[in-house]
Amino acid sequence: MAKQERAVRTRETLIRCAAETFDREGFTVASLTTISTQAGVSNGALHFHFASKAALADAVEDVALLRLRAVTGKASPDGSSHLQHLVDVTHGLTRELLGDTVLRAGFKLSGDPARPCRTDLRGYWQGWVEQVVARAVAEGELHPEAAPEGAVTAVVGATVGFEVLGAQDASWLEPRTVTRFLELLLPSLAAQELRKEIRAEGTGQ
Amino acid sequence: MAKQERAVRTRETLIRCAAETFDREGFTVASLTTISTQAGVSNGALHFHFASKAALADAVEDVALLRLRAVTGKASPDGSSHLQHLVDVTHGLTRELLGDTVLRAGFKLSGDPARPCRTDLRGYWQGWVEQVVARAVAEGELHPEAAPEGAVTAVVGATVGFEVLGAQDASWLEPRTVTRFLELLLPSLAAQELRKEIRAEGTGQ
Repeated sequence: MAKQERAVRTRETLIRCAAETFDREGFTVASLTTISTQAGVSNGALHFHFASKAALADAVEDVALLRLRAVTGKASPDGSSHLQHLVDVTHGLTRELLGDTVLRAGFKLSGDPARPCRTDLRGYWQGWVEQVVARAVAEGELHPEAAPEGAVTAVVGATVGFEVLGAQDASWLEPRTVTRFLELLLPSLAAQELRKEIRAEGTGQ
Repeated sequence: MAKQERAVRTRETLIRCAAETFDREGFTVASLTTISTQAGVSNGALHFHFASKAALADAVEDVALLRLRAVTGKASPDGSSHLQHLVDVTHGLTRELLGDTVLRAGFKLSGDPARPCRTDLRGYWQGWVEQVVARAVAEGELHPEAAPEGAVTAVVGATVGFEVLGAQDASWLEPRTVTRFLELLLPSLAAQELRKEIRAEGTGQ
């Protein structure tokens, strides 16, 4: 393996092991020794890649943001509504939070009062939900009595709740939890003619 | 002031100042010196009351649980439904989270991975919501298509989300945020004949 390729792999391993440690112990408690041991590298090698624990946490947040963008950037099936897209991406986010330690750790780091608010994954998620809801409004997809701000409040509030509760009990991030929530929300959210078309369990995209 | 009364007041002040410090800085970063300085007592006086930072955090969680119980224990107006009671208490919780640092810090401590799960305020809240939803089901208050588990998921998920998001942006805990969420939820949740009676903004109880 070329030297550069090895360095890239070591960096990726360190970010993954840091995410696992931050996710399990929290940023403040996590030690660099735990991370380097878990990654199977020396402390010196860790410091070659990352000057400090804060720099390592920044890297975790950066990778988490890329992964969140990959989730929100996924296309929905041709011709499906913006509300179906919102449903699909909400399922995509909770599915990734369940399986992807880097994304989960990134969300936690973003909300940690001991860290400067730098990447703000929850803020990025809120901004994305606001955009999709605005597009749904423009296309007449919302129920006439539904307030767009209410839709954003409900989806962002509940997903952040699932994220936080899921850290101690993974069932909060399971598809059936999210489906149940969306089944209650959609009748008030979607225009009547659209409601029966939208699948609360997602289209699997 | 009698010596015993002074000791009780000092203890209360220490718990309040600890809650403020934990709420602002997180449990791990918070120092006992910051807390004793803010409380205007010596380190020795602090250690007379609390053997460790963990003991102080336990005391904050205990007081927070008492206050949560006071919120969930409030009666609703005579003759009002269980769903109206759920709405009223949800508003009561977010209102207290906005104004009561001890309750807010208690919720954070309960969810902190650096602390043993001892009091579990979020779990207590979930248990209470489950009880009220079960009573609403028994009285035929739920919409025939609403799943009781969905109601619990939505209310607990969203309120925990509001709690966490509210730590950085207080508008998530404002009454209008909670009202907007409940306005979207109630049409799917409540039996049709009950829906028009329930006030999403609460009865002010």
